Amino acid sequence: MQVWRRRHDPLGTSIGLVPTMGALHAGHRSLIQRARRTCQTVVVSLFVNPLQFGPAEDYGRYPRAQSQDLACCREENVDLVFIPNLNTLYPQDFQTTVAVSTLAQRWEGEQRPEHFQGVTTVVTKLLNLVRPARAFFGQKDYQQFCVIRQLVKDLDVDTRVILCPTIRESDGFALSSRNDYVTKSQRQRALSLYQALSAGKAAIAGGLRRADLVEKNMAKVLDARHGLAVDYLACCDARTLEPLSRLRGTVVLLGAIRIGGVRFIDNLIVRIRR
Amino acid sequence: MQVWRRRHDPLGTSIGLVPTMGALHAGHRSLIQRARRTCQTVVVSLFVNPLQFGPAEDYGRYPRAQSQDLACCREENVDLVFIPNLNTLYPQDFQTTVAVSTLAQRWEGEQRPEHFQGVTTVVTKLLNLVRPARAFFGQKDYQQFCVIRQLVKDLDVDTRVILCPTIRESDGFALSSRNDYVTKSQRQRALSLYQALSAGKAAIAGGLRRADLVEKNMAKVLDARHGLAVDYLACCDARTLEPLSRLRGTVVLLGAIRIGGVRFIDNLIVRIRR
Repeated sequence: MQVWRRRHDPLGTSIGLVPTMGALHAGHRSLIQRARRTCQTVVVSLFVNPLQFGPAEDYGRYPRAQSQDLACCREENVDLVFIPNLNTLYPQDFQTTVAVSTLAQRWEGEQRPEHFQGVTTVVTKLLNLVRPARAFFGQKDYQQFCVIRQLVKDLDVDTRVILCPTIRESDGFALSSRNDYVTKSQRQRALSLYQALSAGKAAIAGGLRRADLVEKNMAKVLDARHGLAVDYLACCDARTLEPLSRLRGTVVLLGAIRIGGVRFIDNLIVRIRR
Repeated sequence: MQVWRRRHDPLGTSIGLVPTMGALHAGHRSLIQRARRTCQTVVVSLFVNPLQFGPAEDYGRYPRAQSQDLACCREENVDLVFIPNLNTLYPQDFQTTVAVSTLAQRWEGEQRPEHFQGVTTVVTKLLNLVRPARAFFGQKDYQQFCVIRQLVKDLDVDTRVILCPTIRESDGFALSSRNDYVTKSQRQRALSLYQALSAGKAAIAGGLRRADLVEKNMAKVLDARHGLAVDYLACCDARTLEPLSRLRGTVVLLGAIRIGGVRFIDNLIVRIRR
């Protein structure tokens, strides 16, 4: 069907979309550059989507930096910056929801019950508005990528969902627009999440295949620091995000912690040869 | 956004889609003809969508008549007949749902809890696969039309949803693929639904503006026949489908009855001048 339709619609294959909530950092910039290299026309959307924030979360406080964002897009030769209006996107009688079940119920979905439903609804809208041939997402939010890939597959959206590497500071700390929420010393303690995941990856590289032991290894690195709460830390199948007991194939190490009321998530993908 | 995108996608404006569950009758034919008159390319989809049938409903027994359907499409000069494969549309790991809330919870939604969610999910898929400029729906399933119009608006689908008149037999009985489920004498009794709605319409034309009185008028016509259960019979706002107390603007008279285990729905739209 899509092959047939594309023949009637030959020009719809050139747009790349980078959907963001603004407050652009080097991570977003790398997504834009990837889009710039592979697409004729690059669209960046800037929209802090209220649907994906829980009632006790940071919607009001989420950083807004439109003029810097526009400058960044100009520097990166973006063709169109799409800044939707809140009331245009969600008018008063808005009542439609796009939801992914199994994949979106795990991990972040358990911690943030309405979050992914907000993401999948707004992403569906953006994909319909822009109709990009490719849409670019960062590995930092790996579960989000999996959920969106599933949505695109299930709803037959004619867009390729592209996963781009997490951009990190020199010590490994993953970039996020929320990093400025914490003090320098909290940030130092939060770095232990990356260190824990790295320890897990090293243990697997060293031959460990029992998930419980790898998880214990990771937890040890985190436990060493106090004032830090662990939401989850797990070895999962990289496609289904199911927790594994014996590691094989492509594995993702997923972690989420809280420090000073701020959540940090990170992950590492590990490919096991045999 | 869409204006801008269409400039980059000038050929996407010519396809008309008539989504059906097959077993085509003169009602479908009129949709196809309407599409043929207004669109360059006409696509008819034939797919009995399991998601929109309740567990106790007639999915297995729903009429299938592919060779007649293909002949009908050939006669009407359809460009493409799209017959999706069940497992391609819903593979094993399928887990995404599109749902409209308020509009889909009333009337048919109360009687058939999962029905509209099945409709909105499959229609989203079909619209994404075909990307029609226009999609054609019959007034017979008026609430379905309202729900799909809402979905298209809420998710920014770039398709115009077109309502086409109900096609009736000479005595007023609305065509439906399910009409063959009942005997001739049951069909005669089911005709009283149309007669009840017509009585309501006549009462409004005669100046009646109190919904409760119009509804009483309609119910009287139905009550005259026995062996017939009324699911609902109501005067509603034609856009929101909310029940009205005082009639004004565009009103839809909605009705659903059951005879011999088979449900029949019908409706009439009444425009009130002042």
